Amino acid sequence: MKIDLNGILDSKRLAISRALSFVENTDNLNMEITDALFKHLGRAYRIGVTGPPGAGKSSLVDRIITYWRKQDKRIAVISVDPTSPFTGGAILGDRVRMGRHYADKGVFIRSMATRGNHGGLALRAQDAADIFDAAGFDIIVYETVGVGQVELDVAKAADTTLVVLVPESGDDIQAMKAGLMEIADLFIINKADRQGANQAFAQIQSMLEMRHPEKGLWSPQVIKTSALQDEGISKLTNALVEHRQFLGQHGIIRQNFKDRILLKIKSHIEEHVLHEFWTTERQHQLNEAMAAENVMGTLPGKIVKTLLEK
Amino acid sequence: MKIDLNGILDSKRLAISRALSFVENTDNLNMEITDALFKHLGRAYRIGVTGPPGAGKSSLVDRIITYWRKQDKRIAVISVDPTSPFTGGAILGDRVRMGRHYADKGVFIRSMATRGNHGGLALRAQDAADIFDAAGFDIIVYETVGVGQVELDVAKAADTTLVVLVPESGDDIQAMKAGLMEIADLFIINKADRQGANQAFAQIQSMLEMRHPEKGLWSPQVIKTSALQDEGISKLTNALVEHRQFLGQHGIIRQNFKDRILLKIKSHIEEHVLHEFWTTERQHQLNEAMAAENVMGTLPGKIVKTLLEK
Repeated sequence: MKIDLNGILDSKRLAISRALSFVENTDNLNMEITDALFKHLGRAYRIGVTGPPGAGKSSLVDRIITYWRKQDKRIAVISVDPTSPFTGGAILGDRVRMGRHYADKGVFIRSMATRGNHGGLALRAQDAADIFDAAGFDIIVYETVGVGQVELDVAKAADTTLVVLVPESGDDIQAMKAGLMEIADLFIINKADRQGANQAFAQIQSMLEMRHPEKGLWSPQVIKTSALQDEGISKLTNALVEHRQFLGQHGIIRQNFKDRILLKIKSHIEEHVLHEFWTTERQHQLNEAMAAENVMGTLPGKIVKTLLEK
Repeated sequence: MKIDLNGILDSKRLAISRALSFVENTDNLNMEITDALFKHLGRAYRIGVTGPPGAGKSSLVDRIITYWRKQDKRIAVISVDPTSPFTGGAILGDRVRMGRHYADKGVFIRSMATRGNHGGLALRAQDAADIFDAAGFDIIVYETVGVGQVELDVAKAADTTLVVLVPESGDDIQAMKAGLMEIADLFIINKADRQGANQAFAQIQSMLEMRHPEKGLWSPQVIKTSALQDEGISKLTNALVEHRQFLGQHGIIRQNFKDRILLKIKSHIEEHVLHEFWTTERQHQLNEAMAAENVMGTLPGKIVKTLLEK
């Protein structure tokens, strides 16, 4: 066992940190974390926060932390940045934020970059969340940079997904509407003290009304906040509590849990199957076929066929 | 053979449309298009255009079309929208644009959404580009919505990647800098008549200077444009021509071509291997294991092991 299970269950910072590093640094997906923690999972509430860069996601999450810390909730933040293995921005920012909460044992903020493994990032973030869940954190926040597919995958893995926009996001809302509409449980218009907040609010409301949600489905809410002015935060946290209750009442929390496990199992199996397939011999054969002198002479489909017949 | 090869080579619109529909609608990746067109590929110049929503990418591409049409270049645009299978925005916009160029046989604009197959989108876009390449289009533009990972994958599959920003993108530049820095051959500050264009220009320039490009590597350029005012477009197209020459001189065009074929081959093989693995029996077994009464009793790692041993 590469992780200190008792240390994690006792919420020892060092044990948590080491387990997180293990998740980040192993090349292959693995089931070790899942299996080791499995019996201790399912207590934490997982919130995904996504939205365009500059929408103030980090500041908003900071306000949520402060708000819930007053109620003695323990909060972990997993800051996910899939755009680049070299992005220093988010990680630097997190050091600053970490510094602010350094003395507070009830807060843990961790950045995860991709190291070129985009497909696995959502799963690694899930492993990280499992560690915090087992360590007894009440709330786990996935915070993403950007609104691309990887970010959506991460945010969707949460129980509640927040999409954070700003009053100026009108064009964004048009451009991305369906993608965001599908995943958002709550829309936040942050920086709502700026011009255009009411229009953006109305715009989202009218888009939501155009949908005809099935009976028993959650109707996404739109909430105006200002992280800077500390406004709208209690309204936001109340909506989160409300959504979580809704999920619990409809058995969705449990279904989400099972869906996450299923995704982990499938991904792990598929990674293993492909790893087995790409023997040194097959890799060599592919390289040969692609070598300069050959590639234009052989149809790609034939290369595929030869490799699959091997 | 499901495609009309001669029709494509003769650049018949119907043949092209049908081949594009075939690429979009087949469930599995396939090598048919690649093999059929293989001997007729490699002539077109592929340009990827990415950047945040609202940066004016479509308008900019429109200006580029108009500019190059005057030189009698034939241009195809593949508008890629990975955020949602249901997004109507991009497709509606393309109908409007298509209408403008309807009578012009030298322009072809096509939207591709994902239908839930995110991983394959970049490859499908590549198949579509191959069709246009074989049909004798001089320039193929991949235009993406958003700046997430799928969009980057698409944009990276081009010979030249344009990152379009606006003067207000300061925060975005900070947040996404490394990811964009790595892929951009040209930075465009569009809507450069707005306040802050010079600051954004200087910001990108200074970031570029912090890098120490190896000798023989391309130094990305920063260009201010206003698609609305039709300004900076010839400067932009000149930079594109310059970059293409650079690629040709360094053998990169040919390497890109081979890399794209390699990716296609590997992806196709892997899809096939996984398809073979997931027999009805294994799928059934996984569903059983995940059924409500069992899931909490069995460790996920054991489910993985059982399925891999089958």
